[in-house]
Amino acid sequence: MDNQTDNPYPIHDLLRQRWSPRAFDDRPIEPEKLRSLFEAARWAPSLDNGQPWRFLVATKDETAEYERLFNCLVTGNQKSAYRAPVLMLSVAHLQFEDGSPNAHALHDTGMAVENLVVQATALGLVARQMAGFRIDQAREDCRIPDGYEPVVMIAVGYPGDPALQSDRLRAQEPPLPVRKPLTELVYSATWELPSSIFRQG
Amino acid sequence: MDNQTDNPYPIHDLLRQRWSPRAFDDRPIEPEKLRSLFEAARWAPSLDNGQPWRFLVATKDETAEYERLFNCLVTGNQKSAYRAPVLMLSVAHLQFEDGSPNAHALHDTGMAVENLVVQATALGLVARQMAGFRIDQAREDCRIPDGYEPVVMIAVGYPGDPALQSDRLRAQEPPLPVRKPLTELVYSATWELPSSIFRQG
Repeated sequence: MDNQTDNPYPIHDLLRQRWSPRAFDDRPIEPEKLRSLFEAARWAPSLDNGQPWRFLVATKDETAEYERLFNCLVTGNQKSAYRAPVLMLSVAHLQFEDGSPNAHALHDTGMAVENLVVQATALGLVARQMAGFRIDQAREDCRIPDGYEPVVMIAVGYPGDPALQSDRLRAQEPPLPVRKPLTELVYSATWELPSSIFRQG
Repeated sequence: MDNQTDNPYPIHDLLRQRWSPRAFDDRPIEPEKLRSLFEAARWAPSLDNGQPWRFLVATKDETAEYERLFNCLVTGNQKSAYRAPVLMLSVAHLQFEDGSPNAHALHDTGMAVENLVVQATALGLVARQMAGFRIDQAREDCRIPDGYEPVVMIAVGYPGDPALQSDRLRAQEPPLPVRKPLTELVYSATWELPSSIFRQG
């Protein structure tokens, strides 16, 4: 599926095809594919190789485990995630192993999550990240210790038929992602001064 | 180049081949490749599509711009980055456009940086992220406004010959990345309880 028409410069298919739909098919994900998702996250870069990312995961057939994560979602996200066969919660370790603070824990966890999402795309899966969940409930119900920060809930599955979603969700499904133009995101080494890379070559 | 022998589960080549070397070739990067790096970052996912990432970039032939970034690096990173033809600085916008705080700004900037790094791998380039730089100097010299946080400096180039590096740097070049085992990173929906995905299928 190609969701992007607004691609002035070529990028790799895996990055171009990644998107975050609300419609999931309810068929299970093969366990070996799930293992590859986490293996991809495992190989993300991190400051001083700190690897601050952790993941909780539950498949729908593990009812108690799945519901423990699902029940943390706010209602709107429950409505879009309820067909997803797998829920995950990313967690950032805010300290290095020696106890010193890791200011890059959230940043590096984001890199691991992006690796996971890119690997999902490579396997024909889709992943939707959701910040709308009750962090304190997740911390308590999933027994996440102090020093670890719940970051995003991630619904993963095969792409579904948007027609099976409720009208409200269908209306919310973004037909095409919209992004700021590159010239608003990339400057020279002086803020808001245009970079020469848009003039050359 | 394949740097990983410790891959119990298959992942996409682009993710497997990514690494962060210290040795760069000094030949320039084609401007169209640089544009593709930022285009890849542009299409990363973000909370409420906030796109909090910004990038400063300088190529070595833009002497003043390049030195402005280079001079922010701590000495050790200057020694490993000095042959890289391109320096970047990622910056996170800590607020949404409406001024409300974006708690996911660093996380989402990490996702954009990982997209950039994966695209670099796809183009035969290598990228090394460095947290060791003087943030206040970068903020002042590059005129980064309040509400924006300098995150990582990134050296980008074609892979170089480690023999051209100093002995100290050659000794530091990690021959193989080392990662925690997946069972220490991935749990069920209960902290430290093993996930069933390592038992199934």
